[in-house]
Amino acid sequence: MPVPILKQGPILIATVQAALTDSDTERLQHDLMERVSRFRAQGIIVDVTAIDVMDSFAARSLRTIAHMTRLRGAETVIVGVQPEVAFAMVQLGLGFEDMHTALDLEEGLALLNRHRAQGKSTIGRDDGR
Amino acid sequence: MPVPILKQGPILIATVQAALTDSDTERLQHDLMERVSRFRAQGIIVDVTAIDVMDSFAARSLRTIAHMTRLRGAETVIVGVQPEVAFAMVQLGLGFEDMHTALDLEEGLALLNRHRAQGKSTIGRDDGR
Repeated sequence: MPVPILKQGPILIATVQAALTDSDTERLQHDLMERVSRFRAQGIIVDVTAIDVMDSFAARSLRTIAHMTRLRGAETVIVGVQPEVAFAMVQLGLGFEDMHTALDLEEGLALLNRHRAQGKSTIGRDDGR
Repeated sequence: MPVPILKQGPILIATVQAALTDSDTERLQHDLMERVSRFRAQGIIVDVTAIDVMDSFAARSLRTIAHMTRLRGAETVIVGVQPEVAFAMVQLGLGFEDMHTALDLEEGLALLNRHRAQGKSTIGRDDGR
């Protein structure tokens, strides 16, 4: 089942509805890259609230999406990682250390909007220097 | 003895009062995850000032807490690691390299507040890359 992608201003919202198959994941990567270009999107939210199992392929694919779209100028925030999924991911050593996470869609939008308001090209990339 | 957790605005403060048993640690993990969701917390401070022995299980549990809650959008700062505890941890190879640490509660709050004011989802996690 393909992941629907909504456009809300300069932000794309991809709501994952069910466990991602490998082909869904590849299609999501492709669709997001294509829409970042078409809509000149500056932010992407991937909502994984509905996912109750996150395997290493899915985790790596989300990271790939974040890295690819950043190269096109859009920041990705993963929202809605369920507590039990978070626990399992940590046990398996699958982190999202180099990615942005937020509790839910609302917090994710707030994060991207704060980020855009400050006119940064990256979120929190440049402190400590 | 369960660890009390205070809420101060969007920040949760867990003050460890005595050496953590394994069941205390698991309960702390569970309680923090539950409250991050309930209170939409964006930051967590775990104050270990009262701890004079940090074994590998406790250190790993604190790291698990930090990683899990980060997947839910909250950053964790460990504060109050005593000098002798720090010495022992280094000797045992137990580091908190991938975690945020601060001298005491005050510095920890300052760190989280700076981070929130700048609209970041991570505290300088990815600089230098």
